[in-house]
Amino acid sequence: MASADDRALELHRRLRGKVESRPKAELDEDTLGLLYSPGVGAASRAIADDPDAVTELTGRGNAVAVVSDGSAVLGLGDEGPLAALPVLEGKALLFRALAGIDAVPIALDVADEDAFVAAVAAIAPGFGAINLEDVAAPACFEIERRLREALDVPVVHDDQHGTAIVVVAGLVNAFRVAGRPLEDARVVIVGAGASGNATARLLHAHGVGALAVTDSHGALGPGRDDLDDVKADLVADLGLDDEGDVGDVLRGADAVVGLATPGAFGLDDVRAMADDPVVFALANPDPEVEPDDARAAGAVVVATGRSDHPNQVNNVLAFPGIFRGALDGGLREVDDAACLRAAKALAALVDDPRADRILPPVLDDGVVPAVARAVAGT
Amino acid sequence: MASADDRALELHRRLRGKVESRPKAELDEDTLGLLYSPGVGAASRAIADDPDAVTELTGRGNAVAVVSDGSAVLGLGDEGPLAALPVLEGKALLFRALAGIDAVPIALDVADEDAFVAAVAAIAPGFGAINLEDVAAPACFEIERRLREALDVPVVHDDQHGTAIVVVAGLVNAFRVAGRPLEDARVVIVGAGASGNATARLLHAHGVGALAVTDSHGALGPGRDDLDDVKADLVADLGLDDEGDVGDVLRGADAVVGLATPGAFGLDDVRAMADDPVVFALANPDPEVEPDDARAAGAVVVATGRSDHPNQVNNVLAFPGIFRGALDGGLREVDDAACLRAAKALAALVDDPRADRILPPVLDDGVVPAVARAVAGT
Repeated sequence: MASADDRALELHRRLRGKVESRPKAELDEDTLGLLYSPGVGAASRAIADDPDAVTELTGRGNAVAVVSDGSAVLGLGDEGPLAALPVLEGKALLFRALAGIDAVPIALDVADEDAFVAAVAAIAPGFGAINLEDVAAPACFEIERRLREALDVPVVHDDQHGTAIVVVAGLVNAFRVAGRPLEDARVVIVGAGASGNATARLLHAHGVGALAVTDSHGALGPGRDDLDDVKADLVADLGLDDEGDVGDVLRGADAVVGLATPGAFGLDDVRAMADDPVVFALANPDPEVEPDDARAAGAVVVATGRSDHPNQVNNVLAFPGIFRGALDGGLREVDDAACLRAAKALAALVDDPRADRILPPVLDDGVVPAVARAVAGT
Repeated sequence: MASADDRALELHRRLRGKVESRPKAELDEDTLGLLYSPGVGAASRAIADDPDAVTELTGRGNAVAVVSDGSAVLGLGDEGPLAALPVLEGKALLFRALAGIDAVPIALDVADEDAFVAAVAAIAPGFGAINLEDVAAPACFEIERRLREALDVPVVHDDQHGTAIVVVAGLVNAFRVAGRPLEDARVVIVGAGASGNATARLLHAHGVGALAVTDSHGALGPGRDDLDDVKADLVADLGLDDEGDVGDVLRGADAVVGLATPGAFGLDDVRAMADDPVVFALANPDPEVEPDDARAAGAVVVATGRSDHPNQVNNVLAFPGIFRGALDGGLREVDDAACLRAAKALAALVDDPRADRILPPVLDDGVVPAVARAVAGT
């Protein structure tokens, strides 16, 4: 039997791309005259007279650019724009199949942040929203910030906010299962990259006061003199004040969210946590600790990024609905409040959370409409 | 009855975009795992190891970016990127319907040529070819030249080369109707913008020696001290050496190709041409002279850009086949030789040219395959 990788490559080879374009009207002499020359002139003139008319006369309002420079392709690293293309095409497939969105893969060959920002700002007129994807930290933070400032359409780095939304939704339900309030819990985020940073911020916005974040050198806090601006801002904005290594901060913690690499924390760390701890081991494709081992070590709820274990934390649960809601609601930005609404809506889709079911199934029909309504605020 | 403009606007409003994306595979748990996480990792790794694999593992080989900065939208002028969007979407519809190409409208908000070139170079990794569209002269020449130098995929400014191909094809057959060889004819191009420049160059490449090109100040030649670099290069490259105004150079000419504005030449000019002159009055939407009047003034063949007159010169006859051929042939550029092959193939599709039928119908099934084969050189 072919390996999973062989099957994946075979399907990629057969399809050569995951979405294709399809005409929205049959092409005949009449539609040629109306939609191309000379009729298109009337649409162009109408937009020249009133730029807002672009929404009703073109596909812009349903179009999302899915943009990567390939600097952090999956777990592979800085592999460049061509290697990012299969991922971007995969997202375009999911955007269309799950949320009816016309997403365009944009693989960027750029030398630095300035060039990245300039390129996305240049192509922005044709899109109703921008999905940043697989952009390495810390550049991703500055790129997102500058693009949000420059553009009047939502700019969302999915590896930050999509992941944060699903993690928060999962934690909300994990603590329902554990029978104690998330707001009072001590939560440790292991990993201070794109997803770790955004998850910490969203948990803070959710009202979780006892937060710690660690990177490979230990807990982020005012005592660290080796932090870059992004991490220093996180310490200041969230009032992080821990010290020590991962083992130190995990001692007595109620939950750990691993957004790092296999082994970033271990089973002894899990055993040293509070009673009935919640363990999210989300490193991909291999989790920080094996889920069965974590359960044996006392974890009451375990989640991973994998589809072959219960409780898959997969941002497919978030991004189609986020963008559907942003487009439908005509949002100019997707802010923390919108992300929190999305996380709560996602959590609320699970009527009766159990230790092995804290999130809806990834392809559940109800997810996109619920997340979209929450983001749009309707 | 609604006017044509009203009908065009109504259809634009109803469709909101002219193409949409369509999944190439049904999305279920299995394909999710193969085409997105985790299977997509195998494709990304394969491309990271061998960049050439991108062609067989993604849709890049069938993807064309249709790019405009809106600096020359149709005949409307510098109306900006939003106003260009309906035109770009119209081309995307034609690319898909006629040539099976996945074309992506890219409306650019850029301040200058440098920013235009940088933006297109940045997004190039995802595309097998670049179609520049509605870019004003003279910037369009420099932008195309620099992008051709920077990129290893074909870059074609359709307003130059698409138009040139159809004009040359039309002239070939017009002179078959007139019963004398095009190569020996004196041909005057009225208009030295994007299409005038490229048409003059392609006629020169075709072997037409007696060429004149005029702009609003008269014939281009070594005696003119007011020419920009682009026009000076055209004079030098083609050995243009006429003087005088449009009327002067049209006297005794065998053919005139108007790529200018209504009134740029007149019926008295047509009457002063050689016997049985060929008159292409291609200004859009209103031709330089009315076709019936031109015939009454002695023209043996008259062509316009309009669909409501015989002999429509429409670059829909060229660009779908040009790009189909460039993609299928794996061309790195579409050069003059490829354009000439395309023009001859297009002309050859009309078995028995008549005064009112020098070109195939715009939506003729045979056009794209014939042009594509000619461009690919297969």
